[in-house]
Amino acid sequence: MTGDPRFQPVDAAVVPRFADVATFMRTRRHEVSPDVDVALVGVPFDLGVNFRTGARQGPAGVREASRLIRRVHPTTGVSPFELCNVADLGDAPVNPLDKDKSIAQIQGFFETLRENRIVPISVGGDHTIPTPILRGLVTDEPVGVLQFDAHPDTLEELCGDTVNHATFMRLGHKEGWIDPKRTLQIGLRGSRFSEADIQYGIDAGFTVITIDDYEAMGRAAVIAKIHEVLGDRPFYITLDIDGVDPAFCPGTAVPEIGGLIPRDLQVILRSLTGKPIVGADISEVAPCFDPTGITCVTAANLMFEMLCAIAPAVAAGRG
Amino acid sequence: MTGDPRFQPVDAAVVPRFADVATFMRTRRHEVSPDVDVALVGVPFDLGVNFRTGARQGPAGVREASRLIRRVHPTTGVSPFELCNVADLGDAPVNPLDKDKSIAQIQGFFETLRENRIVPISVGGDHTIPTPILRGLVTDEPVGVLQFDAHPDTLEELCGDTVNHATFMRLGHKEGWIDPKRTLQIGLRGSRFSEADIQYGIDAGFTVITIDDYEAMGRAAVIAKIHEVLGDRPFYITLDIDGVDPAFCPGTAVPEIGGLIPRDLQVILRSLTGKPIVGADISEVAPCFDPTGITCVTAANLMFEMLCAIAPAVAAGRG
Amino acid sequence: MTGDPRFQPVDAAVVPRFADVATFMRTRRHEVSPDVDVALVGVPFDLGVNFRTGARQGPAGVREASRLIRRVHPTTGVSPFELCNVADLGDAPVNPLDKDKSIAQIQGFFETLRENRIVPISVGGDHTIPTPILRGLVTDEPVGVLQFDAHPDTLEELCGDTVNHATFMRLGHKEGWIDPKRTLQIGLRGSRFSEADIQYGIDAGFTVITIDDYEAMGRAAVIAKIHEVLGDRPFYITLDIDGVDPAFCPGTAVPEIGGLIPRDLQVILRSLTGKPIVGADISEVAPCFDPTGITCVTAANLMFEMLCAIAPAVAAGRG
Amino acid sequence: MTGDPRFQPVDAAVVPRFADVATFMRTRRHEVSPDVDVALVGVPFDLGVNFRTGARQGPAGVREASRLIRRVHPTTGVSPFELCNVADLGDAPVNPLDKDKSIAQIQGFFETLRENRIVPISVGGDHTIPTPILRGLVTDEPVGVLQFDAHPDTLEELCGDTVNHATFMRLGHKEGWIDPKRTLQIGLRGSRFSEADIQYGIDAGFTVITIDDYEAMGRAAVIAKIHEVLGDRPFYITLDIDGVDPAFCPGTAVPEIGGLIPRDLQVILRSLTGKPIVGADISEVAPCFDPTGITCVTAANLMFEMLCAIAPAVAAGRG
Amino acid sequence: MTGDPRFQPVDAAVVPRFADVATFMRTRRHEVSPDVDVALVGVPFDLGVNFRTGARQGPAGVREASRLIRRVHPTTGVSPFELCNVADLGDAPVNPLDKDKSIAQIQGFFETLRENRIVPISVGGDHTIPTPILRGLVTDEPVGVLQFDAHPDTLEELCGDTVNHATFMRLGHKEGWIDPKRTLQIGLRGSRFSEADIQYGIDAGFTVITIDDYEAMGRAAVIAKIHEVLGDRPFYITLDIDGVDPAFCPGTAVPEIGGLIPRDLQVILRSLTGKPIVGADISEVAPCFDPTGITCVTAANLMFEMLCAIAPAVAAGRG
Amino acid sequence: MTGDPRFQPVDAAVVPRFADVATFMRTRRHEVSPDVDVALVGVPFDLGVNFRTGARQGPAGVREASRLIRRVHPTTGVSPFELCNVADLGDAPVNPLDKDKSIAQIQGFFETLRENRIVPISVGGDHTIPTPILRGLVTDEPVGVLQFDAHPDTLEELCGDTVNHATFMRLGHKEGWIDPKRTLQIGLRGSRFSEADIQYGIDAGFTVITIDDYEAMGRAAVIAKIHEVLGDRPFYITLDIDGVDPAFCPGTAVPEIGGLIPRDLQVILRSLTGKPIVGADISEVAPCFDPTGITCVTAANLMFEMLCAIAPAVAAGRG
Repeated sequence: MTGDPRFQPVDAAVVPRFADVATFMRTRRHEVSPDVDVALVGVPFDLGVNFRTGARQGPAGVREASRLIRRVHPTTGVSPFELCNVADLGDAPVNPLDKDKSIAQIQGFFETLRENRIVPISVGGDHTIPTPILRGLVTDEPVGVLQFDAHPDTLEELCGDTVNHATFMRLGHKEGWIDPKRTLQIGLRGSRFSEADIQYGIDAGFTVITIDDYEAMGRAAVIAKIHEVLGDRPFYITLDIDGVDPAFCPGTAVPEIGGLIPRDLQVILRSLTGKPIVGADISEVAPCFDPTGITCVTAANLMFEMLCAIAPAVAAGRG
Repeated sequence: MTGDPRFQPVDAAVVPRFADVATFMRTRRHEVSPDVDVALVGVPFDLGVNFRTGARQGPAGVREASRLIRRVHPTTGVSPFELCNVADLGDAPVNPLDKDKSIAQIQGFFETLRENRIVPISVGGDHTIPTPILRGLVTDEPVGVLQFDAHPDTLEELCGDTVNHATFMRLGHKEGWIDPKRTLQIGLRGSRFSEADIQYGIDAGFTVITIDDYEAMGRAAVIAKIHEVLGDRPFYITLDIDGVDPAFCPGTAVPEIGGLIPRDLQVILRSLTGKPIVGADISEVAPCFDPTGITCVTAANLMFEMLCAIAPAVAAGRG
Repeated sequence: MTGDPRFQPVDAAVVPRFADVATFMRTRRHEVSPDVDVALVGVPFDLGVNFRTGARQGPAGVREASRLIRRVHPTTGVSPFELCNVADLGDAPVNPLDKDKSIAQIQGFFETLRENRIVPISVGGDHTIPTPILRGLVTDEPVGVLQFDAHPDTLEELCGDTVNHATFMRLGHKEGWIDPKRTLQIGLRGSRFSEADIQYGIDAGFTVITIDDYEAMGRAAVIAKIHEVLGDRPFYITLDIDGVDPAFCPGTAVPEIGGLIPRDLQVILRSLTGKPIVGADISEVAPCFDPTGITCVTAANLMFEMLCAIAPAVAAGRG
Repeated sequence: MTGDPRFQPVDAAVVPRFADVATFMRTRRHEVSPDVDVALVGVPFDLGVNFRTGARQGPAGVREASRLIRRVHPTTGVSPFELCNVADLGDAPVNPLDKDKSIAQIQGFFETLRENRIVPISVGGDHTIPTPILRGLVTDEPVGVLQFDAHPDTLEELCGDTVNHATFMRLGHKEGWIDPKRTLQIGLRGSRFSEADIQYGIDAGFTVITIDDYEAMGRAAVIAKIHEVLGDRPFYITLDIDGVDPAFCPGTAVPEIGGLIPRDLQVILRSLTGKPIVGADISEVAPCFDPTGITCVTAANLMFEMLCAIAPAVAAGRG
Repeated sequence: MTGDPRFQPVDAAVVPRFADVATFMRTRRHEVSPDVDVALVGVPFDLGVNFRTGARQGPAGVREASRLIRRVHPTTGVSPFELCNVADLGDAPVNPLDKDKSIAQIQGFFETLRENRIVPISVGGDHTIPTPILRGLVTDEPVGVLQFDAHPDTLEELCGDTVNHATFMRLGHKEGWIDPKRTLQIGLRGSRFSEADIQYGIDAGFTVITIDDYEAMGRAAVIAKIHEVLGDRPFYITLDIDGVDPAFCPGTAVPEIGGLIPRDLQVILRSLTGKPIVGADISEVAPCFDPTGITCVTAANLMFEMLCAIAPAVAAGRG
Repeated sequence: MTGDPRFQPVDAAVVPRFADVATFMRTRRHEVSPDVDVALVGVPFDLGVNFRTGARQGPAGVREASRLIRRVHPTTGVSPFELCNVADLGDAPVNPLDKDKSIAQIQGFFETLRENRIVPISVGGDHTIPTPILRGLVTDEPVGVLQFDAHPDTLEELCGDTVNHATFMRLGHKEGWIDPKRTLQIGLRGSRFSEADIQYGIDAGFTVITIDDYEAMGRAAVIAKIHEVLGDRPFYITLDIDGVDPAFCPGTAVPEIGGLIPRDLQVILRSLTGKPIVGADISEVAPCFDPTGITCVTAANLMFEMLCAIAPAVAAGRG
């Protein structure tokens, strides 16, 4: 086992996986520092939802479930903790009583990560969080976005409010931190408020792959399309856990039947190994609706997929 | 947004989806009236089961879950509340202590709907309910039936009783309200009391598609077969939720593993848009066995699929 | 059975209690009107909490549980639906994305109730809601308040915010809608942020009865004290469900062990029958933390206690 | 350890309590036989309820929970398996589709027990079951009844039906198998359909101890009253588990807050050790509403209390 | 209905499926005897796990769920209870406080079964149990093994311990009761402690089919490969329930997303009908993590699949 | 706010209580050091039980629930984090596959704490853990023990094993680390394997207060007795959570109805403020049986009671 000894997860042969404090993947709880390459962070914000809340407990739930994660990827063989310094940087600051302040605080936190050249993998929190995350991370040119979601999140407003879990893709386009030509929305489905729900992204130039499209194309063609659209320039991955079918991930605010399965996500994320990923998030995990725990387990595993996809390029970039 | 303003669901932009009394899809709770085109009704009867009860809470559970439903179908674009007058007509009358009286009461209720030319979409209740529903709805010629189910429901009797959740397809054939040549049973599986469990329907001329057949044919061929068998004449849709795999719908009396997935039902139901559907039901939803809530969420969404399939023809017929 | 036939709950001998749409105690869902004497209303607001949310589903959960409520009080013999016109007025308007707007909307709703001379019994929502409720109800002289709670709710601020579920008693005192000399806080307990948590109320002149005091005095002496403090002038009752021991009411945001039992509440509320109660609320019921359902059942029963305490005076005042 | 070796429970030192088939208290599953002194039986009937069903799984749930029961009573020192032959006689026959047939079948089963001079302790099933049990057990003179319950079960009818879980005490009085002068109803509470709900028993001469009475008298005085009323002649014990407070027993059809606690039942039942008890039942345990399992655990323990109260007299009578 | 009347399951037409004591598939609870052909047994051992326990309740949970099983296989038509004598032989002896003693006791139990020429289908218990089972069953030549699992169970040790739920396949190879050339591992996936986790089996000559391989080959090719590898000589089937995707089987110690679905297992097991199967087990079912019950339902059904695959050869061999 | 700034819990006004990594009471995760005065530690060992496991997740569950704890005791006013240095020292080492090794490892860990003069408050793990804890802590004279428990834990062996969750009080007496004259067992109840279960402690000179005794004496007299027996010399507190009634703490291995309520524990523990307490534990918390979470919440609060009782003497001793 190689890798910086300061940044190795707790060894399961010494400390059983059920033991001690739960951090993400049993990595070290560390403060922000240039020594960290990849940050595992929580963003416990859920003031941006219009149905049911609960995603503020998402980071706690995923930390606990991530005790299951080991060290080596079974398919790609990537061993991220050998390649780079991975740590649990705790949670982004939020104010549970003030949506706007929270969004500013989150943005500030991710600015600091950017300044320290740390690539973040975040666990929400509701799907408002890509807005402050990307506002914080993106300074120069806009990034591509690979979104997995049941909903396009391109509404103009919800109850008169423009910054919430249904609007970030429109905001990103309008504010210029998303490059629409290198952006995909995958897994869209579910009844709509109006036809316009999905139209904004199409008009903006996003590559929209509804669940119908996904089924028609097949996973391999979708992967090819993803690679074609994203190209070799930097992009961000955002996974609203409701993109996954609710039989696999029931613990979420707005479940929509007939979705992607975790295997789809696994295979797609693995195909991105080594790509220039600037960050990623998994949002809308609400443990209070997850009595079997499988939503948190799924999120923890997909977080590891993201880490294994990200680690090689980070290691290369650092070398 | 067009459509009769008296029959629009509560607007989620004004009244959040978690707020106020739960009616089916947040439509208006209305009394029986010729103004109503499509009725969403509950049939809280579960005295016809021989394993575990609990489907009497089905209508309450699906009403609550149907807060999630919006206005427009994501694939067909049908906007049912613009096309016709949809209302929650409450629950059919039942007597919780008298199976026979309940069945007569339910039949009477559906006779009234027929007299008012209302197309009902019902939520059971156990799968006894198609018997009184179809006795009430069908007066002239028998109808085709599209049944999704793990079990054929063609037993002659259960513990000496002939009207229960395992017999309605035999009763319908014998009493003449089912046209066997235009009837399909899809998704049959699970261990059997005897070989005869499934044979009645085959002998009667039903088109029987077991889960083995379904897998062998593929969904597209099954859809083609459905259209061929049903033709263009009126038919009824009955969905025993145990037709769906129990990972997706655990909250039911008699789960059988290895079943259809919600996506199958979604695609099949969408293919029936505009067809002459005389009514539909979703039965055997038992919230007390559904701690994650996904059974009720699935039922609510499939109820919306049925509504979107039914609405265009109702609108056309009314025009 | 007497009472205005327009305002009788659904008859359980005709429509079983599990059937049809769930309204509070199966009363009629009615719009605001001077015909209504007592309103059962929901206030699905939970943006004022600093630990876990979920009380926005409180009104839905209590409506469903209140199917169990019958017509006559077992101890006092009060039959509220014969004495006055009771209806479910739906939920107060809220904006799930805007705390301040919601508070204004709620206040406006209760102003309308006051203008129609309707006495409200509300189900929250978090314990921020007495602030807009009493702002809306109280115009002239301040009212006495009978608060049951684990926490005093007299903080100055929480995370810099002054209007939330930990501050309403201080606000009421400062804004003048609470008469401190006729105000009691009962059941206080739980670890504190600082000694000051509880001191404000004492200094303001509230009668503070911690759980230690309650045990030392005994229930009968507490009741005598309540009557002495409240006197014969108007008062409001606010029940934070966390005032009840979490074995009896686990479904709440901030459970504190060692609390009041439902029997305590029942006996105290019964002692207030006929008193000039201007309104009441039950807050902090969070169904997502209530897998056994007993929190909602308890809330529904205590809501009926409130109704039976209120109805005689309302009837007398109307006569 | 003495006692007939054919009738000893499985030894936990040899077969761990989690192992092997679950019978009541790990006693032998035996057929009806004169060798058996005390029968532990299930009566999985729940067609007599008007709110929610689920008590048909009561016997299965209590069998599983009764793995916890050991051999010796901690207070009285009674060791029932040494005193007499105790066995699990399985479940009384029922027809899940026919209420009337089931009631006749249950009655027949208990007639057989009476003919074999077996004292039964039954686990329901809903609280209809004392009717067929006592019809089967009582042939000569009526018996006293000690009823623990939230509800008096003295209605004339429910939805037009006269034999259900709300009527057995009236039936027993009218049919003559209950001696009203030696009958007590303890723990009554909860809202009522009408004042008449409780009046029948009072008029019939039952000793009615509501929860208010219980609290006013105190447990010791209640016990004295029980002994005074029952005297030394035979009586039957019937425990509707909803007599217990729902924080302790949430898994039941019609929970009513503010009830007896298990300790009350324990102490009362212990006071009856050695009395001429002709049989006993615990009804309305519904495992599907008992996610924590404490309702089944409570029922299993109270069943052991009943057994320890019954065993000495049975042993003496057999001697 | 033919078959030895001493060994028929309880008839659901006489005793409803929810009634009486739960044995595996409602077969007779029998002692070890040469009259028995196929034994359904529990092995309630879970001292071999390094994450979360709970599989000791597996046999109890699967017995209860197996009330759902009927008599005839829906696809193959096999009616096992007509072909051979099937009984519930209770649980293998274990000592809950001594891992090593338990393993010896289990081995002894299976030696007795072998001596009585009984083919066992076991329900664990954790996946340590194939070690004592096969040590007990295999005396002469090693057997082939068909393993379904997320994990290869070929570690050398876990926390310094060599006999646990992660090592049995290595032990079997080293101790010589597994024939590596006729052994398959199917469904492997999940993050790894190191690359070596999976390598041992490959080096030993096992046919390793990871979930990636499975998807690439397709189910039909996998079945062909299974038949090719196993040939016509005796083999054993071991199913770690975590081989199944956790959406279908959440109730297990170490869930791994992206797994086999129950349909895969059903079709594969059916393909083995009539093969010389020397025994089978289903392990790692932990009911305490299975609030929906679907893990136990799945295990009960797959146990029936195993029984129907085994029965024809047993019947032929006995003939 | 005073107190060593290196050892203050995370401030809830800055980091909301739902945010960041869960440590006990949000204290700092610290390594063993003489700077620490009071250690909050987990002992995730559950290999000593003979019914159901799950207490290995106890430390994780209590850490998560202890997010609710604030800084100041509501009754005594003790503010422990101002008085002494409190930290989360993680979990004692255990080997999940080796009972004996684990017990030795745990003992070694507590020896280290003793050497550093740290007073530990431990969360189990099953109730075997006082054995290695006290073996590690006690070197000179034996200590008094204040045990709250449903079971006496004085068996000689369980299934032939002498070191498990039913034997530690006998071991402590025989090995000499318990002073029987200054030892109390409070809350004993539940059926017994034999009369001898409880006799050992009586014969050894323990003060045994069964739940019957407790009720007869009343809490105040019990407290007086505790003080009389313990005197002013050092003692240890051990709380088996099954000492608490299972309605309040269902999440435990062996629930026994009719127990102490949390209020009893609170008041008793408060009476010990300032006493020379050498350590304390809360054992047998099993989160997998605690779907409402109240067992973990109760344990977290009682842990804070212990801390507030211990802190003043520790501070004084350090001064």
